[in-house]
Amino acid sequence: MELIGAKLSRIEPGIVEITVPYRTDLTQQHGYLHAGVITTIADSACGYAAYSLMPAGSEVLSVEFKVNLLRSAKGIEFLARAEVIKPGKTLTVVRADVFGLTADQGQQTLIASMLGTMFCISR
Amino acid sequence: MELIGAKLSRIEPGIVEITVPYRTDLTQQHGYLHAGVITTIADSACGYAAYSLMPAGSEVLSVEFKVNLLRSAKGIEFLARAEVIKPGKTLTVVRADVFGLTADQGQQTLIASMLGTMFCISR
Amino acid sequence: MELIGAKLSRIEPGIVEITVPYRTDLTQQHGYLHAGVITTIADSACGYAAYSLMPAGSEVLSVEFKVNLLRSAKGIEFLARAEVIKPGKTLTVVRADVFGLTADQGQQTLIASMLGTMFCISR
Amino acid sequence: MELIGAKLSRIEPGIVEITVPYRTDLTQQHGYLHAGVITTIADSACGYAAYSLMPAGSEVLSVEFKVNLLRSAKGIEFLARAEVIKPGKTLTVVRADVFGLTADQGQQTLIASMLGTMFCISR
Repeated sequence: MELIGAKLSRIEPGIVEITVPYRTDLTQQHGYLHAGVITTIADSACGYAAYSLMPAGSEVLSVEFKVNLLRSAKGIEFLARAEVIKPGKTLTVVRADVFGLTADQGQQTLIASMLGTMFCISR
Repeated sequence: MELIGAKLSRIEPGIVEITVPYRTDLTQQHGYLHAGVITTIADSACGYAAYSLMPAGSEVLSVEFKVNLLRSAKGIEFLARAEVIKPGKTLTVVRADVFGLTADQGQQTLIASMLGTMFCISR
Repeated sequence: MELIGAKLSRIEPGIVEITVPYRTDLTQQHGYLHAGVITTIADSACGYAAYSLMPAGSEVLSVEFKVNLLRSAKGIEFLARAEVIKPGKTLTVVRADVFGLTADQGQQTLIASMLGTMFCISR
Repeated sequence: MELIGAKLSRIEPGIVEITVPYRTDLTQQHGYLHAGVITTIADSACGYAAYSLMPAGSEVLSVEFKVNLLRSAKGIEFLARAEVIKPGKTLTVVRADVFGLTADQGQQTLIASMLGTMFCISR
């Protein structure tokens, strides 16, 4: 997360947003944000969103996720918004959308969508 | 890829391996390799494996992938091995396994498995 | 579709709903609707939703889908609602939710969520 | 399973095969086996494969799965072969391939591949 300059920009029970600014060393061969970075912020947002509903002292692990890369990842900043669709004692299912933001933040373009499963390690 | 120190360690038609050495800035909260890094090398290996079977001048894009994170990502080095299971003119389906390697390389532990779809942009 | 008694209950551009009534021969070992039936109506709804945005004379094929089974599939009827999140000339990405309905239709419980990729065969 | 004429044809610890013969009422619009049926036998094989490694008295539930449909589902019989790639106390990860078989069983064509997560309910 630090390596790619990502930061938590919103935390509510069951909803988390993570943003990462564009950086040339985060791009793939066509100059767009690398799928690995998109996936990293989406997965992290899913993990935090699940974690936000877990009992104090719990830890969260990603079991699995699936991501569809929908459009070229263009933008000056990227936003992953995760929302829990099924909380659970052991497993929590989370959906995340990733958006590319324009300079004036006037437009959000959906560039990826994730559906994943998070595991709660109870203490 | 450069940012995380990954390199192509094997390229054959339909089979590609990528390795990344352990580095503390690539870890998550428990000191294991971050899921984002595991996913990045697995996705990149899938992309190159698909690309290795495409006509000259083509470009490859990830359509989607699903990854199961199977065990804590422990090791001094990590290896993603991707293999095409269905080549195609437009879409190629690839499976990848990611292993953690011990210091003496005597043991490979399976830490993640991916199933993904790659798109061929013809020239 | 006929075999399981499913029917299209809503068709709009990019949005399709399919319903299937409860039947004992569609259940698994615990008496709930079998995951295979849930998946079948979700996948069919995704296919029709993608198809609804394709040019006349096209055909649609499922490339892949991922489904999370969220709760026991209880209900007297089941509804799959699919919505296109990214239309495309070749590939269309669709999200579907499946709900269990109570006798008075007063309550919809989310029992499964799908994210899938559909392929357009042009004529 | 009964509805579609499927039967268990092989059970070993961690490996299960299920077969289903071709039937016209199991096909989609092009006369090939419906994706829902392919998915049903693959998911069932995954469930049984996971179950075969669980303690006596356990029950198994599908958490999620992802399937890639690779080729037209042609054949006189279809075989789903599931293999556990990571057993676990709570979660078991299973991979399954589905094959179409020709009349003389001389050839198996890979038509689908699944990667899924199964949950163990302990007694």
